[in-house]
Amino acid sequence: MASPLIPVRWRNGALEAVDSTLLPSKLKYVRITNLRQACEAIKTMKVRGAPLIGVVGAYGLVLAARHLRTQNQDQALKQLRKSADTLIQTRPTGVNLRWAVERVYTTSTRAQTIESLQEESLREADLILREELDAAHNIGKFGAPLLEDGDTVLTHCNAGALATVGYGTALAVIRAAVAQGKNISVIATETRPLMQGSRLTAFELARDKIPVKLICDSAAAETMALGRVNKIVVGADRILKTGHVTNKIGTLPIALAAKFYHLPFYAAAPISTIDLRTEPSQIIIEERSPREVLYVGGKRIAPVGVQASNLAFDITPPELVTGIITDRGVALQPFEVNIPLQLKN
Amino acid sequence: MASPLIPVRWRNGALEAVDSTLLPSKLKYVRITNLRQACEAIKTMKVRGAPLIGVVGAYGLVLAARHLRTQNQDQALKQLRKSADTLIQTRPTGVNLRWAVERVYTTSTRAQTIESLQEESLREADLILREELDAAHNIGKFGAPLLEDGDTVLTHCNAGALATVGYGTALAVIRAAVAQGKNISVIATETRPLMQGSRLTAFELARDKIPVKLICDSAAAETMALGRVNKIVVGADRILKTGHVTNKIGTLPIALAAKFYHLPFYAAAPISTIDLRTEPSQIIIEERSPREVLYVGGKRIAPVGVQASNLAFDITPPELVTGIITDRGVALQPFEVNIPLQLKN
Repeated sequence: MASPLIPVRWRNGALEAVDSTLLPSKLKYVRITNLRQACEAIKTMKVRGAPLIGVVGAYGLVLAARHLRTQNQDQALKQLRKSADTLIQTRPTGVNLRWAVERVYTTSTRAQTIESLQEESLREADLILREELDAAHNIGKFGAPLLEDGDTVLTHCNAGALATVGYGTALAVIRAAVAQGKNISVIATETRPLMQGSRLTAFELARDKIPVKLICDSAAAETMALGRVNKIVVGADRILKTGHVTNKIGTLPIALAAKFYHLPFYAAAPISTIDLRTEPSQIIIEERSPREVLYVGGKRIAPVGVQASNLAFDITPPELVTGIITDRGVALQPFEVNIPLQLKN
Repeated sequence: MASPLIPVRWRNGALEAVDSTLLPSKLKYVRITNLRQACEAIKTMKVRGAPLIGVVGAYGLVLAARHLRTQNQDQALKQLRKSADTLIQTRPTGVNLRWAVERVYTTSTRAQTIESLQEESLREADLILREELDAAHNIGKFGAPLLEDGDTVLTHCNAGALATVGYGTALAVIRAAVAQGKNISVIATETRPLMQGSRLTAFELARDKIPVKLICDSAAAETMALGRVNKIVVGADRILKTGHVTNKIGTLPIALAAKFYHLPFYAAAPISTIDLRTEPSQIIIEERSPREVLYVGGKRIAPVGVQASNLAFDITPPELVTGIITDRGVALQPFEVNIPLQLKN
C-alpha cells in the first residue's frame, strides 16, 4: 500500500485540507485560517464526507475562537455560539458536523479565560481528530471479517480516507480485509453529479493497488443481476436508532437492488454518525445547486431554460440494511434494539 | 406544440437522419448513402432508440441493395444476406433492428430481378417507417388514459421522437395525454453515460412546452420516496413474452424503486419491440466502450489506469412491471398469457 493519505492536518495555527475538487489530477492542500474559509471549504465540497466535515467543523470553531472580537468571556461565548451555528448550517444532512462543532463549543464554555478557551477548543478538536482516526481503523477491524477471500464489493461515492481523517469507513473495511490477505475487488459507482466515485474512490484504491472497476450509478442493479457483486459496503452521513441510513444520493437504489438480488448491504460509519435523537421524518435532505446536474465539467449539457432538481442524499430504510459497521462493532437487525444497545453505551 | 420532429427521412436516394450526438446544441441531419455509413450511424449512436435503429437498419439494407456488386440474383441475395448480418450485429440488444432488417431481406428474396429487388426493398422500408409512425400515435392513444390530470411522470433515457420515426413511445403517451388537455409534468433522468435524458428528452419536451425537470439517475428512488412522482413510463429495446423488459441501463433500479414505493411502472413500445421467441437468459446485453464512463465531454474524469465496465442495457423482470403499452393496446399481468394474446395476433 502507498503511504496513508492525510486528508486534513493542523499546522502553524491553520488547518490544511486536501482540496478534493482538484483530484485526481492534483493532490493539493488548501490552507484554512478562519471561520469563513472553513465554511466555504465545506459548502463547496473541497472537503466532504460526514466524518471529515465534522473534523473541519471542529477546527473551524477553533479558528473562530482565535479571531474573537472581545476580551469579555460572555461576549466571546455569544460570538462562538453564532460561529458554531454558522458552521452547522453549511451542510444540514450529515450529523457529524453538528456533533463535532457542539463538542468543541461545549468545551469552550467550560474555560475560565479567553486564552484557555482557545487552548481547550484546539485540544478538543485534536482529540476528535485522533478519535476519528482510531474509529476508522476499528471500523476496518470489525468490518473485515464480513468480507471473504475473492469477494467483489460494490461501494458508492467515496467513503475512504478522503471522507474521513484517514483510512475511511467503507474503504476501511475493504482495506482491513486486504491487509488480512484476502483478495478483494471493488466495483465503484462513479457518483453523479460530482463524481466522487470516479475521482476519489478510484484514486484511493488505485493508489493502494486494490483492483477497482468503475460503473455508472445506474448500472449497479444490472451488475448485481449478472452476479458480478458479492457484497455492498457504503458509508453514511447520518444513521438513526431505527437503522435508517442517510447517505449520498444513489445509495437507496443500490440497497433496493441488493435486497432484490439477496446480497448483503452494509453501511460503515463511526459512532459520531449515529444519531439516536432524530426521527426519520425530521432529516433535512440537502438540495444542492441544479448547476451540478445541468453542467458537466463547466459545459452545459441540458438545453437552455430546462430546470433540474439536485437532491444530495437519500434515506435507506432499515429493512434494506443487513448491518451497520461501526468502531464499536457490527449492529444487526433488529436495529431499534441493537443500535442503542451495542453502539452508544 | 412545435412542428413535429422528423428524425429520419428518405430523400434523393439517401437516408437523412438527425445526428442525435449533436443535440441539443445543433439540430443537423447526417446523410447516409451506403451500408457502411448506416452501420456507423447506429454504432456511434448518431441514431439510437430501438424503433429508430430498426428503420435505419431497414434503409441500410435498401442502400446495400443499391450497391450490389453483381447482376446475378443468387449472388445478389448472398451479398444482401451478408449486409443484413452486418447491420444486425451493430447493436445486439434491441430486437427492432433484426426484425426490420429481416423484413426487408425477406421481401428482397421474393423479387425476380435486381431492379425489382431494389424497388421492393425500398417499398418495404418505406412501409416499416409509415407503420412505425402510426404505431407511435397508437401507443399514445392507448397509453394516454393511464395518465391523470396533474400527474408527474418519471421517464428514463429518451423514448421520444428521437428514439423512433417521430412522436415517440413513452413520450407518445405523455404527448397524447397533454393533447387531451391533461396537465402533465415530467421528471427526466439525465441518463449517464451519454446523457440522452438531458440532451434529448429535455430538448423534445421543452420544444413542446411540456414542463420537464432533470435529475441524476441515482436520484429517481429518493424522488419517489419524497412523493414527487405519480407514474413511471419508459421505452423498451426488447420485450419478451414473459414480460421481461430490456431497456437502457438504469431502467431496472427505477422499476425496483417504483415497486417499493407502490407506483405504476409502464413500458411503452411498438409491436416491433415484442419478441415472442427469445428466453430471458438468451438476451445479449451490449457492453459499450469504457471510455463513455471514464471520460465526460472529452475530458478524463477517472485516474489514468483505472478500468470501467459499461453495460448499455438492463433487464427488468415482469414482477416489477405494471403494464406494457403498445400500438395494439395495454397488456397487464399475467404477461405470459396477455402479451401473446393481446399483442401479437
